[in-house]
Amino acid sequence: MANDDLAFLPPGVSQADFAAALAEWRSIAGAEFVSADPDRLASYSKVMLPVPAARHRPAGFVAPASVEEVQAVVKVAERYGIPLWTISTGKNLGYGDAAPATPGQVVLDLKRMNRILEVDETLGYALVEPGVTYMQLKQYLEANSIPLWISFPSSGPVAGPMGNTLDRGVGYNRYGQHFENFCGLEVVLADGSLLRTGMGGVENSREWNVYRWGYGPWVDGIFSQSNFGVVTKIGIWLMPKPPMSLGFLCGWNDDEGMGKGIDVVRHLHLNKVIENAVLGHTMYHIAQTRRRADIYDGPGAIPRARVKEICNEMGLGIWGHITTLYGTEEQIEVNLKIAREAFAATGGQFMTERDPGIRETPFHHWNLNMTNEPTLTEFTIYNYKGGGGSSWLAPVVRCEGSEALRQFNLMHGVLDEYGFDYIGGFLIGGRHAEQLTDILYDRNDAEEMDRARRCYLAMIEALHGAGYGIYRTSTTFMDDVAETYGPAQRALNRRLKLALDPKGILAPGKSGITA
Amino acid sequence: MANDDLAFLPPGVSQADFAAALAEWRSIAGAEFVSADPDRLASYSKVMLPVPAARHRPAGFVAPASVEEVQAVVKVAERYGIPLWTISTGKNLGYGDAAPATPGQVVLDLKRMNRILEVDETLGYALVEPGVTYMQLKQYLEANSIPLWISFPSSGPVAGPMGNTLDRGVGYNRYGQHFENFCGLEVVLADGSLLRTGMGGVENSREWNVYRWGYGPWVDGIFSQSNFGVVTKIGIWLMPKPPMSLGFLCGWNDDEGMGKGIDVVRHLHLNKVIENAVLGHTMYHIAQTRRRADIYDGPGAIPRARVKEICNEMGLGIWGHITTLYGTEEQIEVNLKIAREAFAATGGQFMTERDPGIRETPFHHWNLNMTNEPTLTEFTIYNYKGGGGSSWLAPVVRCEGSEALRQFNLMHGVLDEYGFDYIGGFLIGGRHAEQLTDILYDRNDAEEMDRARRCYLAMIEALHGAGYGIYRTSTTFMDDVAETYGPAQRALNRRLKLALDPKGILAPGKSGITA
Repeated sequence: MANDDLAFLPPGVSQADFAAALAEWRSIAGAEFVSADPDRLASYSKVMLPVPAARHRPAGFVAPASVEEVQAVVKVAERYGIPLWTISTGKNLGYGDAAPATPGQVVLDLKRMNRILEVDETLGYALVEPGVTYMQLKQYLEANSIPLWISFPSSGPVAGPMGNTLDRGVGYNRYGQHFENFCGLEVVLADGSLLRTGMGGVENSREWNVYRWGYGPWVDGIFSQSNFGVVTKIGIWLMPKPPMSLGFLCGWNDDEGMGKGIDVVRHLHLNKVIENAVLGHTMYHIAQTRRRADIYDGPGAIPRARVKEICNEMGLGIWGHITTLYGTEEQIEVNLKIAREAFAATGGQFMTERDPGIRETPFHHWNLNMTNEPTLTEFTIYNYKGGGGSSWLAPVVRCEGSEALRQFNLMHGVLDEYGFDYIGGFLIGGRHAEQLTDILYDRNDAEEMDRARRCYLAMIEALHGAGYGIYRTSTTFMDDVAETYGPAQRALNRRLKLALDPKGILAPGKSGITA
Repeated sequence: MANDDLAFLPPGVSQADFAAALAEWRSIAGAEFVSADPDRLASYSKVMLPVPAARHRPAGFVAPASVEEVQAVVKVAERYGIPLWTISTGKNLGYGDAAPATPGQVVLDLKRMNRILEVDETLGYALVEPGVTYMQLKQYLEANSIPLWISFPSSGPVAGPMGNTLDRGVGYNRYGQHFENFCGLEVVLADGSLLRTGMGGVENSREWNVYRWGYGPWVDGIFSQSNFGVVTKIGIWLMPKPPMSLGFLCGWNDDEGMGKGIDVVRHLHLNKVIENAVLGHTMYHIAQTRRRADIYDGPGAIPRARVKEICNEMGLGIWGHITTLYGTEEQIEVNLKIAREAFAATGGQFMTERDPGIRETPFHHWNLNMTNEPTLTEFTIYNYKGGGGSSWLAPVVRCEGSEALRQFNLMHGVLDEYGFDYIGGFLIGGRHAEQLTDILYDRNDAEEMDRARRCYLAMIEALHGAGYGIYRTSTTFMDDVAETYGPAQRALNRRLKLALDPKGILAPGKSGITA
C-alpha cells in the first residue's frame, strides 16, 4: 500500500489532484517507482546546503523506465500543474544533491534509464541515457576492451555524464571541458513532445553523435543549466587511449608563485604544449587528510600563517600545479622539456611521475583523474570538519596570474570575515579558470550553518561587485547568482521558459528561472 | 533626393507606410544610408543562385552606424511590419551573397559598424563589430605587431568573422572550427532590447570573451544560422602565432586512396598529432586554373576517366590531403614523423613544405590559409565555366573512409545525372567532415540554371534518403534543407521565433524559419 504524505503537497495542488496524479504515474511507471511516502523520499531530501532541508523538500518522486514513460509522466504533470525536478544520478554533491530548488516539487528520477546505447570505438563516442554512471561506462569499456578514456569530474565514481555535462561540469583529461565534448541530445519537452537535436533530426543519420551543430539555430545549449526540457539521451565524446601518459607537478611556497604558475599554464595551454591543468591550494589537500580540530583550534578562519606552517610541516608548497601529458614517448619528451623550462622560470619545485615521490604528494590523485582512474579522494574533505555542510562556489576568472591572485584574495577575505577556511583551487580551461571553492560547515550548528549561508551571499556580492560571475551554484543560491547576470539575460530566459514550458512544470527555480 | 522604388514593397506593407518607415530610418541612420532606389540596391540584388534574381530582390536597405541606431531601426521595422535581412559584410558568396531569402525584405547592412573594439594579446581574442573584415583584423594585428593568427575561411580576404562564425563557417588553422572559437555575443532583439550573452551580463566583467558559457542556459547557439536577433558584437579567439609551422601533403591517384587517407587523418586528428586537414579533389583545383571548355567539350558531366587523364597530364593525384603542423621545431619533427609513417601506409605520395615542389601543387594555397595568409584562390573556380552561377552544398559525413567514399559516390552520381562536374572536397573536423561541393552553372542559360536548381534539390533528396544532413545552404534552398531535419526541430524553431520575434520582422526564411 502507498503510504503517501498527502498533507505535504506541490504548491497550489489539491490533495485530490496530487493523489490522482500519483495514481496515473503509478500506472505509467509501475507502483513501486512512484511515491510520496516521506520514508521513501529520504534519498531525495538529504542536502548539504546551509539552509533547513525543508526549504528543498520534495513532495514525491516518480522514476520512469523509458522515454515513452517520461513523455507520459510529463503530460500528467502538466495536466495537474505539478512541478517536476529532474535528476539523472542525483549526485550533485554540494550543489544541492538530488533535492529540488523549491519545496513541493516531485523528483523526476531518471536512474532507471541507464542503458549505454552505443559505443563507437572508431569515432570515439558513447550514446547514453541519464542514469548511466561514469563508473558503469568505464566498466563497459573495459569489459569490451574498448581503448577509450572518459573525462571524469571529481565526483566521477558516483556521478554520471548526463548530469555533469548539462550542468557544465569539468573534468581532467583532454576532454575536461565537458560542455565542449558532448554531441547530440534527445529531449522531452514540457508538452511531452520529443526532439532530437542536431543531426539527430535527420532520419537514419549516422552523424548525430559526431557533428554537433546540425542546421539552423543550435539549441542544445539552452538545455544546459536550465529547465526547458528533460534530456533523455546524450552523446559523449571519449578520448582515444593515448600510447603513453606522464604527469608532472610544480609547487610553490607562496601565492606569488601561484600567480606566476597561472601565467605559465596559460601560455603552455594556448600553445597546445599541455591540454589540461589544475592548480590547487594545499589546504584543499590538507582538508582531505587531516581533521580541522587537529590542526587549528583558534577562533575564526585558520590563519594564513598557520596554513604555511602546516604546509612546511608536511613538506609541501602552498600551491601545486598538475598536468598530464599524452602521446607517444617522443611527443611527451618534447612537451615535457618545454614545460619544464617554462615552469623553471617561476622558481617552483618541479617533479614528474617518474619520480616515485610524486605519489606521496596530495596532488597525485589528479594525475589519476587525468588518466582514466576516477577517485573520490576529494570528497574526503567532508571529514575535515564534519557536520555534513558543503556549498561549492565557482567563479570564473581570466587565466592571468594577476587576476587569479586578485580573485583569490577577494574570496579569502570574505571567508576570513565569516570565519571559514579557504579550501579550493583553479581548474584551468586555457583562457579562463574556474576557482572552485568549498565552504564547509556543521549543519548541526544552526549559527554556523546560517553564517555559511550569509558568507555565500556575501561572496556572491563581493565577486559581483568586482565584476566576477559564478559559473555554477547550488540550488539554494540559484536566484541570487542569476541576478548577477543582469536583467536582459533573466528576461530572455523567462521568454524562452514561457515559450517552451508555459505552465512552468519543469524544475521551477533551476538557474533562477520560473514561468 | 531619394529615388525610392515605392512600387516594389515589402509584402503586406502599404506604399505610405514604406515611405514613412524609410523617412524614419533616414532620421536615424542618415539620409545617404537608407534607400529603396533600385540603382543603389544593385549590390544587394546580385546573386549567383539558380533562380531568377527577382526571387531574392530586396525592397531597400538601411545601414545604421551604431548599436543604438540598430535598436531604433529594428523598432521602426517592427512597428511597420517590415522584414529586415541582416548582413555583416554581405560576402556570403555562393550561399546567397547579400540578398534576402525572400523578396521585399529590407537589407539591414551592418558594414558601417566596423570597429575592432579590443584585441587582447595575452589571452588571444578580439572583440569586433559586424562589419569588420578578416583582412581588416589581420592588418590591425600586423600594424600593432600583435603575434596572433586568424583562422580565415576560403572567403577570408573579403568576408568577416561575424558572418562566417554565425553561419558556422569553417577555416583552416587550429581554430578552424569557427563556431567553437567565438566567445560572447551582443544581440539586439526584435523588440529593440539589448542582450550580452555569457559573462557579458555581469557588470564590468573581464571574462566576457574568455569564458563562453556564463550561467544558466547557453543561448549563443540559437543566434547562429537563425533569425532570432541581430548580433552587433562578437568575441573571436585568435591563435597565438606558433614558433614555427610546416605544411605537408599526401596525394592519391584513386578514390580508394582518399578513403584510406580519411581514416589516417581521423586517427591523427583524434590523437592530436594534427589539428587541421583538408582532403580535396583535384577537380577543385583544375577548376581554379583551367577553363572547362579547354578540357572537355562532350555532353554531360566531365567523365571520371577524363578527370584522371587531366590529373595525369598535370602530374597530380586525384585527391590531395593538406595539413600544417604548428609548434617548435622539435614538436613538429616528432609529429611529422608520426604523420609520415601513417600516410605511408596508404600508399600516397608524401611531401612537405621543405620540398619546393609543394609550391607548384594546386594544394599549396591551403597551406597559406593555414598560416595566416588568406587567399581568394578558390574563388577562381568561378572562371571555370563562367556565367556567374554557384551553389555550395555541404553535407556532413562521419570521418571514416568508407562513409566518405559512399557519400562522394552518391553526390557524384547525382551530379552525373544532371550533367554537372564534381568540384569539391572534405574539410575535416576530427569526428566529422563536411563535403564541400560547388555546383557551377551559367546563369545566362535558363535551361542550365534551372537544371542546376533541380540538381540541387535532387541532391538534398538523395542525401536525405541516405541519412545525410546538410550543414549550410544558400538562401534559395533553406526551406528544403530545414525540412530534412524533421518536424520536431522545425516546430521548436518556430516556437523560439514566436517567443523572440512574434511579428517575424527579422530575416524571415533564414534557415527555413518564419513567424
